[in-house]
Amino acid sequence: MKIKLNTHYSELKKNYLFSEIARRVAAYSAADPQKKIVRLGIGDVTLPLSPCVIKAMEKAVAEMGKKETFQGYPPSFGYDFLLKAISNHYAAYGTDIGTDEIFVSDGAKSDVGNITDILGSNPVLITDPVYPVYYDSNVMSGNSVTFIPANRENGFLPSPRGIDTNGAVIYLCSPNNPTGAVYDKAGLQEWVDFAVSTGSLIVFDSAYEAYIKGDLPHTIYQIEGARKCAIEICSFSKTAGFTGVRCSWAVVPRELESGGVKLAEYWARRQSTKFNGVPYIVQRGAEAAFSKEGYAECMGLVEYYMENARIISALLDRKGIYYTGGVSAPYIWMQCPNGLSSWEFFDELLNTVQVVGTPGAGFGANGEGFFRLTSFGTRDDTVEAVSRLEKIL
Amino acid sequence: MKIKLNTHYSELKKNYLFSEIARRVAAYSAADPQKKIVRLGIGDVTLPLSPCVIKAMEKAVAEMGKKETFQGYPPSFGYDFLLKAISNHYAAYGTDIGTDEIFVSDGAKSDVGNITDILGSNPVLITDPVYPVYYDSNVMSGNSVTFIPANRENGFLPSPRGIDTNGAVIYLCSPNNPTGAVYDKAGLQEWVDFAVSTGSLIVFDSAYEAYIKGDLPHTIYQIEGARKCAIEICSFSKTAGFTGVRCSWAVVPRELESGGVKLAEYWARRQSTKFNGVPYIVQRGAEAAFSKEGYAECMGLVEYYMENARIISALLDRKGIYYTGGVSAPYIWMQCPNGLSSWEFFDELLNTVQVVGTPGAGFGANGEGFFRLTSFGTRDDTVEAVSRLEKIL
Repeated sequence: MKIKLNTHYSELKKNYLFSEIARRVAAYSAADPQKKIVRLGIGDVTLPLSPCVIKAMEKAVAEMGKKETFQGYPPSFGYDFLLKAISNHYAAYGTDIGTDEIFVSDGAKSDVGNITDILGSNPVLITDPVYPVYYDSNVMSGNSVTFIPANRENGFLPSPRGIDTNGAVIYLCSPNNPTGAVYDKAGLQEWVDFAVSTGSLIVFDSAYEAYIKGDLPHTIYQIEGARKCAIEICSFSKTAGFTGVRCSWAVVPRELESGGVKLAEYWARRQSTKFNGVPYIVQRGAEAAFSKEGYAECMGLVEYYMENARIISALLDRKGIYYTGGVSAPYIWMQCPNGLSSWEFFDELLNTVQVVGTPGAGFGANGEGFFRLTSFGTRDDTVEAVSRLEKIL
Repeated sequence: MKIKLNTHYSELKKNYLFSEIARRVAAYSAADPQKKIVRLGIGDVTLPLSPCVIKAMEKAVAEMGKKETFQGYPPSFGYDFLLKAISNHYAAYGTDIGTDEIFVSDGAKSDVGNITDILGSNPVLITDPVYPVYYDSNVMSGNSVTFIPANRENGFLPSPRGIDTNGAVIYLCSPNNPTGAVYDKAGLQEWVDFAVSTGSLIVFDSAYEAYIKGDLPHTIYQIEGARKCAIEICSFSKTAGFTGVRCSWAVVPRELESGGVKLAEYWARRQSTKFNGVPYIVQRGAEAAFSKEGYAECMGLVEYYMENARIISALLDRKGIYYTGGVSAPYIWMQCPNGLSSWEFFDELLNTVQVVGTPGAGFGANGEGFFRLTSFGTRDDTVEAVSRLEKIL
């Protein structure tokens, strides 16, 4: 064909991370099929959906089978019942988010990726190490990305001090994937103040907010000024185990404006043109996850995973190994011992104790020398992995 | 904020069509609340899901509630079971589409809108009147659009004769929304030959293929050469009543290539970066819709709507009014009588017999003087509307 393609796609690096992990694990298994491999690298939930959610979805399926209760095209931005449930969720954190500022969608990944659609060509700031979608979606749009180093010196929570910009798009994720580090109010206030004073937009990914313990911000709107500079993207994936159910939302405050145009208006136009809403059945499940009883059940799932995190963290504490995360996040980001590179440590764990994690180098240059463990496995696997790691760390 | 937005959004026209219809209907109802209004303008299905689909989704919901059968992140491009069901659907039309060429998504609207993401800046050809997403998504990308007039002279099935291009992106929809016109093999062959000889890409929207009767192409891949020039986007929305369930697919043949790059590779990268797959429950429902029993049930739904189409068409035949569609499509596109403009006819129908349809002008310049009726209402409403129209046409 003679048509032109988006040439920026050719600038994308192939992301070999998970395929390379799979390749090395497969090669090891083929060579030594007797050894049982335990995975602490999984980024997906493993526990079933809560009973409240199942009940609500069963009811919704039945409704779809009857003429009187059948639902056709969903509203582009979500049913009122779910918008209200999400608004109430924000109210519980002391923030006031109107239902007209919430846009329900099929996944935080979709929203994080699609947000570039309504933006022009701006300087982009992304913390490193990082969830790859922030970077890849900006490469696809031909935007110039500057990485902000997260490292042991700043506790993997970089501040905007020293950054010079005349208006940028800034991606922040807290609790962070992959580091599990969480901004406190003061730390996030610095970013909000910086964004407001420079005319920047923060895209705030709060997908892991349900894992937070103690007095840390669950939403950026708990920070003074955030309504003037931040879009927040959150999800039911990790809060309610919805990775296979697909439901999330974006908050675009009505204060957000550039050149006299409201960002919410552009996002509404984008979503109503290139998206057709989330399934009725899914939205009923999500509503149930945010009911009083459903939320308590979901927090039970979160607690199960966080007990895994404590088991892993306790090992690292005993061994005196530096790590972030594991307290208010399902991820534990550990320094590789003995100065090993992250792939060297990966190979050592696989070859000596058959434990699989994720090499930090796969998340960016600043991930080198670090390693991601996750708490999404079963208790048995987590305990087994820790007892194996105990022997060699 | 100082960040730049996508300025092309400011070039979008507000689409007042359905809000203007709602406004006029509301005004009429307020003035004369006694009169019962009958709608033949609805573009959404109204019958409940088929029993097979319901049963499959009930089972899938139950699976999500048990540890042993719980499903996390779905595969980015669809579960194998659904890819195989879709591939078999194509095989039934005598075409060979590999599971690696099928990309399951949450809606034809999403795919039609997002396809611009992987394309560069190309001349775009769109038939007029038209489903607004083809045009709006290209305006958002800053592409230059040329309309190809569909009109009474060409039976609302324009051919490429006389078009000069050195490689364009061409949007075709057959059966067409809003005109209900359907290309035969010879007509579609002209487009495929044109695309192949000019190095163009056809984006073929076949969302209404289930409504086709007789020897007309259900898929563009029934046309010789289509694998070298066409992406096809299809959906369960109208085939299985899935407008509120959300499942569709795109076919990107492995032959499609430009500048040495495979389009399937770029689409895969786009979908795996900015999309996270379709819910397990939904994919199980879709699989059931394409089972032997499920498909027969779905064709029962289609037949119900097509009986409505026959009732409406018979009226127009009796009155000698020109129309397209209604035979192999759920839409009937009629010429407004007495030289009325499409909004004048809208007002006349509303004021005299309280029947609501959709003014053709809302679908583009060439829609002026035409009017869209749909067969998605109930039988009672359709019969009632026809008996009212009988009196005044």
